[in-house]
Amino acid sequence: MITIVGLKGIPLIKKGDDLARIIVEAAARQGIVMRDGDTIVVSHKIVSKAEGNVLNLKDVNPSPVSLSLAKTMAEDPRHVEAILREARGVVKIVERHMILETKHGFVCANAGVDRSNMEGSEWVSLLPKDPDRSARTIREGIKKALGCNVAVIVSDTFGRPWRIGQVNVAIGVAGMIPIKDYRGKGDMFQHILRVTMIAIADELASAAELVMNKSDGVPVAVISGYSYPRGEGSARELVRPRERDLFR
Amino acid sequence: MITIVGLKGIPLIKKGDDLARIIVEAAARQGIVMRDGDTIVVSHKIVSKAEGNVLNLKDVNPSPVSLSLAKTMAEDPRHVEAILREARGVVKIVERHMILETKHGFVCANAGVDRSNMEGSEWVSLLPKDPDRSARTIREGIKKALGCNVAVIVSDTFGRPWRIGQVNVAIGVAGMIPIKDYRGKGDMFQHILRVTMIAIADELASAAELVMNKSDGVPVAVISGYSYPRGEGSARELVRPRERDLFR
Repeated sequence: MITIVGLKGIPLIKKGDDLARIIVEAAARQGIVMRDGDTIVVSHKIVSKAEGNVLNLKDVNPSPVSLSLAKTMAEDPRHVEAILREARGVVKIVERHMILETKHGFVCANAGVDRSNMEGSEWVSLLPKDPDRSARTIREGIKKALGCNVAVIVSDTFGRPWRIGQVNVAIGVAGMIPIKDYRGKGDMFQHILRVTMIAIADELASAAELVMNKSDGVPVAVISGYSYPRGEGSARELVRPRERDLFR
Repeated sequence: MITIVGLKGIPLIKKGDDLARIIVEAAARQGIVMRDGDTIVVSHKIVSKAEGNVLNLKDVNPSPVSLSLAKTMAEDPRHVEAILREARGVVKIVERHMILETKHGFVCANAGVDRSNMEGSEWVSLLPKDPDRSARTIREGIKKALGCNVAVIVSDTFGRPWRIGQVNVAIGVAGMIPIKDYRGKGDMFQHILRVTMIAIADELASAAELVMNKSDGVPVAVISGYSYPRGEGSARELVRPRERDLFR
């Protein structure tokens, strides 16, 4: 049996906050005992805030390109500028959509720049600079505080081509291999399976979203009872290299 | 708290089997009490088998196009033929990949035609003809047997552009609205959220995959403790219409 619990009562996060300590304390208040092998899923939003990876739009001067794009998109040109600065490639800019490749290689809307759940209307959050490192820091902090080995996933909410609606995915991992590889394994009848690599870190992030309601401040979930492949994995393993992508 | 349990000991499914009865009995053997508001996720593979929606390749005559494609793909031409017959559109055929639009509108590899977990090397499974209806039938069977209202999701394993690895998604739903719509709702600070529609049926399918190990015969999961929007939804709501798809 797998269980998923959302951590409530996590305070507003400020730059410099120790997320591992805050998570450990919130779990303790709820009577949740974290154990070896648990997975802790953390919304990237609080990671970015703790790391100070946020931007005040009043400090952003839009370029001519941002001004022009902002006009067609009916957007704040400083917001468009903030988005373009976070990108290293354009996958598609059309109508009011900007699907970009982030500096990490993730393909998502607005290069992960987001105004939601930010105090004050002029602030935007950026993705963490190195989400694997952020996950590692939280993992090590929990290990130090409680002595147990958990996996940590930093999550964001991404759209998908072909399908309506967004789902949570993993943008940073620590203490786990994010993909379960069934290639070459037999199925129930010992056929060789068609190429089957399951993106378990993305599935864990999606499962956690079910308790991380967007609007009510549950930025952390604890998943117990799932046995992931342990190891020093990276969310970069989930990024399809541009040259192996059929859709770029 | 959300809990996810995989149902073990489900027998090999044959054409005509009553899946609702089989699920109810398997749950009872494991001491699982299904309750109002639970979500039952069922692998499409056993649905297709129960509905006889399988094909023996020895009954398939490949067309010249299938013969030609099979050569470049080093595939059985009858398998290629079976795949093309299930498609209503081509998204991309390149090297050894066939990304097709199924008759239902889903975009996936091989139009959902699959040889894994099939008895005998000549058999392939197709997607259920009407996966929403399949889900509805199971939902009604469970209601009849136990008197409780569950949601049912029929799932399949799909790849994604841009990201490595496959995840489970919903191809049929009953008793739930598959998308949670936050548009126009405020966040913690009462900003209007950027367009945010969460594909909860896909997230539930992904969560269920974590207990539905590909190779060891756990084709059904019971999810408790998640409050989905009730109603007569359809997995077609998860399909992005071709004309609103940025990537076709």
